[in-house]
Parts: sequence; structure tokens; C-alpha cells
Amino acid sequence: MVRETDDLELKRRPEAEEDLEDLALGEDYALNPGYVPMVADALDRGDAERLRELLGALHPADIADLMGFLSAGDREELVPHLDAETLGEVLSELDTEIREEILEHVPSALLAQALGEMESDDAADVVDDLEADKRAQVLAAMPETERAAIETTLAYEDETAGRLMQREVVAAPQFWTVGQTIDHLRANSDELPELFFDVYVVDPSYRPVGAAPVSHLLRTKRDTPLAQIMEQVTEIPVDMDQEEVAYIFNKYRLISAPVVEPGGRLVGQITVDDIVGVIQEETEEDILALAGVGDAGRDAGVVGIIRSRLPWLVINLATEAIAATVVGAFQDEIAKLTALAVLMPIVSSLGGNAGTQALTVAVRAIASRELNSSNAMRVIWRELAVGVFNGATMGGLLGIAAYMIWHDIRLSIVVGLAVLANFFVAALGGILAPIALERLGRDPAVSSSVVVTFMCDFFGFLALLGLGALILL
Amino acid sequence: MVRETDDLELKRRPEAEEDLEDLALGEDYALNPGYVPMVADALDRGDAERLRELLGALHPADIADLMGFLSAGDREELVPHLDAETLGEVLSELDTEIREEILEHVPSALLAQALGEMESDDAADVVDDLEADKRAQVLAAMPETERAAIETTLAYEDETAGRLMQREVVAAPQFWTVGQTIDHLRANSDELPELFFDVYVVDPSYRPVGAAPVSHLLRTKRDTPLAQIMEQVTEIPVDMDQEEVAYIFNKYRLISAPVVEPGGRLVGQITVDDIVGVIQEETEEDILALAGVGDAGRDAGVVGIIRSRLPWLVINLATEAIAATVVGAFQDEIAKLTALAVLMPIVSSLGGNAGTQALTVAVRAIASRELNSSNAMRVIWRELAVGVFNGATMGGLLGIAAYMIWHDIRLSIVVGLAVLANFFVAALGGILAPIALERLGRDPAVSSSVVVTFMCDFFGFLALLGLGALILL
Repeated sequence: MVRETDDLELKRRPEAEEDLEDLALGEDYALNPGYVPMVADALDRGDAERLRELLGALHPADIADLMGFLSAGDREELVPHLDAETLGEVLSELDTEIREEILEHVPSALLAQALGEMESDDAADVVDDLEADKRAQVLAAMPETERAAIETTLAYEDETAGRLMQREVVAAPQFWTVGQTIDHLRANSDELPELFFDVYVVDPSYRPVGAAPVSHLLRTKRDTPLAQIMEQVTEIPVDMDQEEVAYIFNKYRLISAPVVEPGGRLVGQITVDDIVGVIQEETEEDILALAGVGDAGRDAGVVGIIRSRLPWLVINLATEAIAATVVGAFQDEIAKLTALAVLMPIVSSLGGNAGTQALTVAVRAIASRELNSSNAMRVIWRELAVGVFNGATMGGLLGIAAYMIWHDIRLSIVVGLAVLANFFVAALGGILAPIALERLGRDPAVSSSVVVTFMCDFFGFLALLGLGALILL
Repeated sequence: MVRETDDLELKRRPEAEEDLEDLALGEDYALNPGYVPMVADALDRGDAERLRELLGALHPADIADLMGFLSAGDREELVPHLDAETLGEVLSELDTEIREEILEHVPSALLAQALGEMESDDAADVVDDLEADKRAQVLAAMPETERAAIETTLAYEDETAGRLMQREVVAAPQFWTVGQTIDHLRANSDELPELFFDVYVVDPSYRPVGAAPVSHLLRTKRDTPLAQIMEQVTEIPVDMDQEEVAYIFNKYRLISAPVVEPGGRLVGQITVDDIVGVIQEETEEDILALAGVGDAGRDAGVVGIIRSRLPWLVINLATEAIAATVVGAFQDEIAKLTALAVLMPIVSSLGGNAGTQALTVAVRAIASRELNSSNAMRVIWRELAVGVFNGATMGGLLGIAAYMIWHDIRLSIVVGLAVLANFFVAALGGILAPIALERLGRDPAVSSSVVVTFMCDFFGFLALLGLGALILL
């Protein structure tokens, strides 16, 4: 990290471009926090020359990062200092919220130009974020073919293979040789995708029958037929959900895969670099859902954040209120034996934690398809065994602690049994709630914690206070 | 999903291989749960012919999946039915726990053969899992060059670029043309990595100065110098942590990157398919850590699971016990006004949830490097604003609910203020705990929830009972 005194010093003296690059990124390739105020300062002073230098030292992905650290006002001022190509690359790297905000301020002509520099899938993502008026303007300003490509991509549903794929593919008929293929590529160099990893071998109906990795084309003699070096392909249906696509890429370690229409015709390809983003996105969603946070990007304002969190808190209030009715029903007992009030939150908190542990593991196992009907019974038994063991252990510990304070063996037995019972309920809820939610077609990450937290609080209170009323009073 | 009746029917009649492939995988390419008992059944009957058919219909990655669904006994019996090449591929796909268990039962000679079929990084991973005796036996049974490659890889620290990289790279001197490079590749086809995406252009000291994507080699005229088509490379130091490597790949959308020694010499390459696994692994660790679960694979036995969860429960008991001392100090007040006991768990649970929301978002922002010193103050203020707003809203709601039950405006004010205060503490803890832990060099995902849960319970009880004692009694 750059210390503040360094910053000031650095701003005063002119640097070579090389120096700026060293300053921009830390050793871990993350943007240096000290670089952000340097850019903000140049923006304040309206120093276009300095900005050109500062931005020139950054990769578009780092400019996108920088945007995230700048205030909204600074971001808006920064955009006119980017050329169309860089703007296009930055836009495809930006978080949705920041992108939407920036898109409002980019002139339609510049945007049309920037979109032309992007791959069709990335460009379509950006166009999808535009408001209707602006979208029409921007599309009108684009060349016919590029507009058509974007419109075709947008016709597929969001978060499907169709939206993820790029339409640019390299295909060759089965009967070609390696030499013919390479000659064809050299002759049509202009029409090829910027990067590609496989040449798809297609039959006369343009259905993929195999793929020749480019590294195999390079190492093979020119007269070898493609059919001889091609490998099996995993076809991705164009309407497949992106989460499934990511699962397939991860499982088979794919680098690229052909996307096909219902008839089997090749319409595009998905490459692994798109998948890395999808995996990040999907696990991120799960992490936040488990914590009861809706999707609000990093630059969501206070209102956006409140909107993403308040609904879950309201649900939590409702379920806690129901659990508290149990406490309400035992008020007389609590007044007589206030030790119950002291132990109550410990019992429910321990159970809640045990439930969260079980449900998190189950949610992840379902997401990575390691839990299905063929091993569900085994996993359920295992969770119950763990619940009983951990419950007995923690119940024992809390019982001993309670004895040291209140010297009442019956109270210790009550609290120990209550913990054990609550752990059993936690284990049962923690494993069954996600499985049941998944069977019902709901996302287990989103609703499981509500169910399990409620169960653990309700039964925790009931076990402790109920047993206490029965045995102690 | 295949229903049970179908299974029985299917077991009785012989199928063509094609049929089995359809049966094996669902439309989402996940292993069909119904396929698992078919394999288990063939194992029970010792039907080697049937097993050959059943396994033949599966990709090695699916066999690895299948292993996860089989019982430990069945897995052990399955191994001898795999040939060395398939075994190698299956081993590199397996979860660590299952792999360790299986490795105990594979004869050293077969294992040496299987390792020979794998890439050096995958093979090294497997050898690393072996116990000392077996490791020596297996390495002794391997050819000299392969053994040396594995030993060199193992000399790098776990979870670094050195362990992740494959030592097989394609490099060419700067002054070569595209044609010379392709001729060289064709002539040395046997020594090349199975798949590669870039030819690294190196200087006379074997330091990478650029990379020529293979798709560019294919489309470019033979007499073009490499120096003219090569692109900038992002060098990965051999000792870089794998989490940083994943960050760089994700940020710059890399497909492959050269790995260099401290002097800058090219020693290997990392490809994006290895990175997909790392990203999964690292986010998985964070999800589990946030839920207070240590690392235990999906096939950990009951003991392994208990070991991964009990430590956090014990810590939770300790912190809850401290928070409960607050309740203990107010026992007289609770005896007089048992409504406090009813409201107490609601106040602490709401605060705990608000804290979990804030800390999860902060932990993720730190992990994806979207939160650093340049925007920390802005993010902290935003969290506090959200905390105060949500606290006031939820406090208001709970106050109204309390009034409808107890008809005591002072009680409603007390509980409302307690919620507001607890949300403020939750917001403060939720954002500051992860930031502080990160500054101290600790993993914020692991310890933040302990801190925040404790704070919210402690202050929640203190605010409600303290205000209650002051205002109501």
C-alpha cells in the first residue's frame, strides 16, 4: 500500500509511464489504494493530460476496478477521457449498478462505437442494461450486422447459454484436412473471432460432430483429415441455464463448447473465460442468500442496500415473534426461576449455529450436485449422528457450567437435555429443509436459513422451558 | 430422475452402449441417481462384464462423481475395474478425502502407471496425498523423468502457482517466424503438452517477452515474425498464492499465463481450467467458514464432520456464556417484568441477523478486492446509515407489536431503542470486524461471525435489560 506522504510527493514530480504502471498495481495485481486519489485529484483539476497518463498505465479491467472506488461524480467525469475501444472493454468488466449509472451519461454515438468493438455477448449485456429510448438510439447508430447480432443474442432468455455464447465460431466440414483448414483460416483471417480454441467439425446440416483443438491443428501434418484428430464435443443446448453450463464446464474441464439450437445446428460457442464469471456470480448469490441479503451490487446506494436487507429482517421478526410466544407461555415459570432466562439464549444460539452448519453444508452439496436421492439417506443419517454427538457434548458442557453456577443437578439435566433435543431438531431441519426446498423447485440457499433459524429458536425455547416447567417447578 | 421400477426393468434386459449413456446422465449432465444402484448391484454380483459396460458409458469425471455416491466398500471394489489411464483421470477429479481413502488400496505398480498418464501438476497432487512408505514405492516404480517432474513440483509450497502450474510449456525464440514455429511443433509433436493455448515467446535467457495465441498462429501468414503477432503476457511468480493467481486470471480473463522463477526464467504455465477449480475451492472455503464449519470434504465420516464443527460450537458456547452474564445481572428485573424475557431473544436475533448481513457483504467485498483503504470510510458510513435506518424500522415494528400485547408505551419505547442501538452495534461490528481482521492478516471469513454474533448478543441484552431497568422499574 502507498502511504499518503508518498502520494503527495508522487503527484508533484513527473513520472515516466513505466513508473505509473508500478504505482498503479500492487504486487498482487490489485489496484493500489493510493492510485485512486491521484486520479480523483486529476479529475478535480480537469487535467486531461495527466488523466491520459494515469489511465494509459491501466488495463481496462483495472480502469473498471478504479471506477468502483471513485465517487459517482468522479466516474461520470472520467468517461469522456476514454476512447471508444477502451470504453467498450471497461463496460464489459463493470458491475451492473455502476454500468447502468455510467450508461446514462455516455452519448449514444460513442456508445454505438464502443459496442462495435466488443464481442456480441458482451455487447448484448450492455444493450440489455439500456433504457428503451437510449437502446433504440444506440442500435440505430450501429452497422446492420452488428445490430442484428446483438438483437439475436437478446432474443435468448437472460442467464441462458444463448446469452452467454458468442456467435462467432470457426467451423469446418468433416472431409477437410488440417492443411485445408489452416489455409481457410489464413484466407478468412478478418472474419474469425479474436481468440478461439477449437475448430468445430460439422456435418452438412451444420451440426457439430467433433472439435479439433487448435493446438492439435498446429502439431499435426497438413494432410491429416480433420475427422482423424477431432475429439468428442459436449454440446450445450442454447436454452440451458448458465448455472448448468458452468457445472458442465467445471466437471469436464472444458475450454470451449459448441452451442446448438434444438435441431442440433451450431449457433455459437461458449468459452471458459465467460464461465469463470458465471461461477463467481452464482456462488456469490448463494453466499449472500445464506446471509439473508438480496442482490445489491457493491455500488448500490443506501436505499439499494436497505431494499436488499430489510425484507429478510421483517421475515426474521415474524418468525422470532412466533418463537417468542413459547417464551410468553412460560412467563410464570421464568419469574420463579430466572436461571431459565439466562440459559434460554445460550440454548437457542447453540442450536441455531448447529443448524446453520448443517444447512450450509447441505446447500453447497446440492449446488455442486453431490447430494441427490441416491445418497440422501446416508447423508441424513450422518447429520443426525453428528447432531446427537455434538448435542450431547455441548449439552454436557453447558450442564457442567450451569452446575458450577446454580449447584442444581436437575437444572443441569434440564439444560443438557434441552441442548441435545435442539441439536437433533437443528440437524433434522438443517439437512431436510434444503432437500425439501430443492424438491419443491425453490433455491435452497434463499429460504433454508429462515426455516432452520425458526425451528431452532422455537424448539430450543420449548425444550428448555417445557422441561424446566415439568422437572423443576 | 429414474424411478425405481424403471431401474429394475433396466437391470434385467441388456442394453446397447448408447442406451447406457442416455441412462447415465440427466439432461443437465449430472449423474442420474438411478445409475448408482445399478453399479452397486453389479459390484455386489461381481459382474465384471456388466461393470465394464456401465463404466464404459461414463466420462472419468462422472466416474469420480459416481465414487462419491457409492459406499466406501463399493468404491474399494470398483478400483480394480479401472484401467491405468482411466484411473489416472478419475484420481485427478476426486475429492481429497475419497482420493486418500482409495489410494490406500491401489497397488503401487498400477498407481505409478496411472500417474504416468497424468499431467505433472495433477500427478504431484496425488503423490502429495500418499503416505511416506507408499510414496517412496510409487515414485521408485516410475520412469526417471516423470519422477523428477513430480518431485520438482512438490518442492513448491502447497496452494502456490508452482503447485498449480504444469511444467510442460511451448516456447519459441523471438526471431522465429510463424512458419518456423509451426514446423517445430509438428516435428516435436510428441513432447508437447496435450493441450496448449499460447506459444510463449522467450528471450535468450528463457524469460517470456510475449505470447502468441495458437489461434493467431493458425490465421497468420507463415513468414510473419512471432515478435509481430505476440501479445503482452502477465507473468505469474512461481511462489504466488493460488488465490491471487485466480484473482488475476479472473480480472484479466486469461486463458493461460507463464509462470516464472525469481530471475524471470519461464518454468511452467497455468491454464484457466486449473483456475476454475481454485475459484470453487476458495469460495467454498469462505462459505463454510462464514457458517462456522471447518474444511471436511463431502465424504468425511461422522468423526471428520464432528471435528470440523465442534470447535466453533465450543467458541460459540464461550461467547454466549459471556453474553448471558448480562442476563444474569438483570435476573431480578426479569422476575419483575417477564415481558423482557420474551422480547430479549427477538432483539438479539434481529441484531445478529443485521450483523451477519453486513459482515457477509464486507467479507465478500474484501475477498474480491472491492474494499480497501481508498473507499473504506465511504463503505463504513453507508453501513452505519443502513444500520440506523433498518434499526429504526425494525425497532418501530417491534415496538408497535409490543404495544399491542402489553399496552405499555414505555415498554415499546425501551424495546424500540434497544433494537436501534443493537443495529448500530451490528453495523459497526459487521463492517469493522472484517476490515480489522484483514489488517491483522487473519482471514475475515473465519473469525468475523464469532466477533459479530458475540457483540450483537451482548449489546442486545445490555440495551434491552439496561434500558428496561432504568425506565421501567
